[in-house]
Amino acid sequence: MDYSTVIALDAMGGDNAPGEIVKGAVDAVNERNDIRIQLYGDKDSVEAELQKYTYHAEQIAVIHTTEEISCDESPAAAIKKKKDSSLVRALRAVKDGECDAVISAGSSGAVLVGGQVIVGKCKGVKRAPLAPVMPTEKGISLLIDCGANVDARPEHLVQFAQMGSIYMEHVMGIPNPKVAIVNIGAEEAKGNALVKETYPLLKECKGINFVGSIEARDIPKGDVDVIVTEAFVGNVILKLEEGLAKTMMTIVKRGMMSSLMGKIGGLLAKPSLKRTLKTFDASEHGGAPLLGLKGLVVKIHGSSTAKETRNAIMQCVSFKEARINERIMEYLAPAQDAGQIAE
Amino acid sequence: MDYSTVIALDAMGGDNAPGEIVKGAVDAVNERNDIRIQLYGDKDSVEAELQKYTYHAEQIAVIHTTEEISCDESPAAAIKKKKDSSLVRALRAVKDGECDAVISAGSSGAVLVGGQVIVGKCKGVKRAPLAPVMPTEKGISLLIDCGANVDARPEHLVQFAQMGSIYMEHVMGIPNPKVAIVNIGAEEAKGNALVKETYPLLKECKGINFVGSIEARDIPKGDVDVIVTEAFVGNVILKLEEGLAKTMMTIVKRGMMSSLMGKIGGLLAKPSLKRTLKTFDASEHGGAPLLGLKGLVVKIHGSSTAKETRNAIMQCVSFKEARINERIMEYLAPAQDAGQIAE
Repeated sequence: MDYSTVIALDAMGGDNAPGEIVKGAVDAVNERNDIRIQLYGDKDSVEAELQKYTYHAEQIAVIHTTEEISCDESPAAAIKKKKDSSLVRALRAVKDGECDAVISAGSSGAVLVGGQVIVGKCKGVKRAPLAPVMPTEKGISLLIDCGANVDARPEHLVQFAQMGSIYMEHVMGIPNPKVAIVNIGAEEAKGNALVKETYPLLKECKGINFVGSIEARDIPKGDVDVIVTEAFVGNVILKLEEGLAKTMMTIVKRGMMSSLMGKIGGLLAKPSLKRTLKTFDASEHGGAPLLGLKGLVVKIHGSSTAKETRNAIMQCVSFKEARINERIMEYLAPAQDAGQIAE
Repeated sequence: MDYSTVIALDAMGGDNAPGEIVKGAVDAVNERNDIRIQLYGDKDSVEAELQKYTYHAEQIAVIHTTEEISCDESPAAAIKKKKDSSLVRALRAVKDGECDAVISAGSSGAVLVGGQVIVGKCKGVKRAPLAPVMPTEKGISLLIDCGANVDARPEHLVQFAQMGSIYMEHVMGIPNPKVAIVNIGAEEAKGNALVKETYPLLKECKGINFVGSIEARDIPKGDVDVIVTEAFVGNVILKLEEGLAKTMMTIVKRGMMSSLMGKIGGLLAKPSLKRTLKTFDASEHGGAPLLGLKGLVVKIHGSSTAKETRNAIMQCVSFKEARINERIMEYLAPAQDAGQIAE
C-alpha cells in the first residue's frame, strides 16, 4: 500500500519511553489506516510494548538501534558520535527520504542540532526556528522562535514570520493569520535594536498579515496568531508560561486547602475546573515543529504520554498533507531577496 | 520638626488620581508622625480630597502645579516642555534636595526619563535600572532591569546585580541575597552573547552571592532574590507574569462557572482563595524603584489605589533609613573598575 505519511518515531526519547511512545503510535495507526510508523529503539523493549496491543502489523515497523542520547550530554557531540542512537537513525530516515517526519521526546538540544545537521535546511531558509503552539484565552498562538540559535538578525525574524504564517494557515487552519513582533511598547519607535530594524521589514513584507508590536502582557489573550521573536526571548516566554501556570495552580490549591469551606468548595469545583484547564494544555495541540527543514522534525515534551505522541503524529500528517515544506520552499527560495510570499 | 523622610508625591498621575493618591498620603502620615509629604498637583482638586480626612496639617503640604503629563505623549518631549507638570516639579524637589524621594503612578516612560534627566545618576552608576519586586511561591524576588534602556552591556548587568543586592538586603531585609542571571539553560556555556560575556564577570564579582543562571520556568518558584536581566527581557517577564496571572484567573473562573457544582464550589472556596491570591499581589510590596539615582524615584502601577500609594511611601522611608544611595555610591564609585562591593 502507498501510505500518505511515513513517520520516524524515536521510541527511546523522553521520560515515558518506550511504553507511552509505542502506545501513541498504536493509537495513531488504529485511527488512520493510511499512515505508517517506524519505531526506532531497542527491538526487545519496543516489541514487548507492541505485543500489548492490536493493530495492522504492516503499519508499524521496528528498527533496532543500540544507542540512546541522554539530556545530560552535549547535543552536538552526541549527534556526531552516537550514529546508532534512536534519534540519529530516525533523523537519517527523513534525510534519506525514507520517512516524511521525525518525532522525538528526547533531548531538546539534540533534536535541534540533529534536525539542522542531519535533515538540513530547505533551500532559501536562513535559520530553522522551533515554533511551539501556546494555548491562549481564545485558542492558540504560534511562538516562533524558541530554539537554540540566539542573537538572530532582522532577516531571520522576517522568515520566521513567513514560515509561521504558512504553518498556522495550512496546518492549523487559521486563514490570513495575524503576525506580531514581541516588543516593550506598542509604538513603532519602541524596542531594542533588533526589533527596531525588523519592524519596518515586517511592515513591508508582502503575503503576511503583520499587525504590529505585541506586549508580553497581551500574549495570553490570544488576539494574534503568529508571535515573532528572537530565540532567547521566545525561550523565556515559553518557560515562564510553563512555570507560572504551575505556580498559579499551586497557589489556587493552597488557597482552597486553607479552610474547611475552601476544601469542600474545591472538591465540588474540581471536575469542571479540570475540564477547563485542559483547554489550556499545550500538549493538546501536538509538539513543537522545527520549521524550514527538508522534512518535518517535531519535538514533544520530555514528559509526553501516548496522547501527546498520538497528537504529534496527527500534526505530522496534516503538515505533510498541507505540503508545508513545498510551500516554504516555493515562497522563500525564489523570492528571498524581496522577502515576499507569493499567493 | 525634623522629618526622617520627606516625600514628593505626584498627585495627578495614574488612573485613580488625585483621590486615591491623596488618601494613601493621609494613611501614611497617620501611621508615621516622623514623615512629611509634598503633594504636587492642582491645588483645588487636591485640597478637596484632603478635606475628607483628619491628619496633622504640618505633615502634608500641597504644591500647586498647572500641567499634567499623559501616557500618550512622548516622555522625553513632555519632561522637557511641561516644566510645571506635577511630575517634573516633584522630580525637581528631589533634585534640589528639598525631598528625599518621588512617587508617581503616571506615565512610566516619563518617570524613567525624568528620573534620569532631572534627578540624575549617582557617581559611578552607568545606568539606572527599574527594579520591580515580583511575588513568587516563596515570597518575593527583585527583577532588575525592566526599564526603558534596552541593549545593555555586560558591565551594566554587573552593576544591576550589585545595586539589586544592596536593595534586597537593606530595604527588604534579606541577608546575603542570592543573585542569578536569566538564561535559556543552566550551564555557563549557554545563552546569548550578552549572557555569555556577563556570566564570568558576575562569577568574579565580590560582595554579591551569585548562584548562576536561572531559567524562566524557575522564576515563579522564588528560589532566587535578585534576578538580573537586560531591560527588554525584564519587561517581557514582568508583563507576561501580569498577563498570564489574569488569564489563569479567567480560566479558573470560567471552569468553576461551567457547572452547577462548580458554581457552588467556587462560592465556598472564594474567601480562602482570595486571601491566598493576595499574597501573590505585587502591589503589597510597594512600587518599582529606579535605582542608582541621586534620590529615590519610585514608579507605582497606573491603577494604584491608596493602599499601593501608602505601601510605596513606607518603602521610601525604609530606603532612606537604610541609606541605600549612600551604600550604592560608597560601593560603586571607588571600586567601579574592579566591579567590587566592599563590605
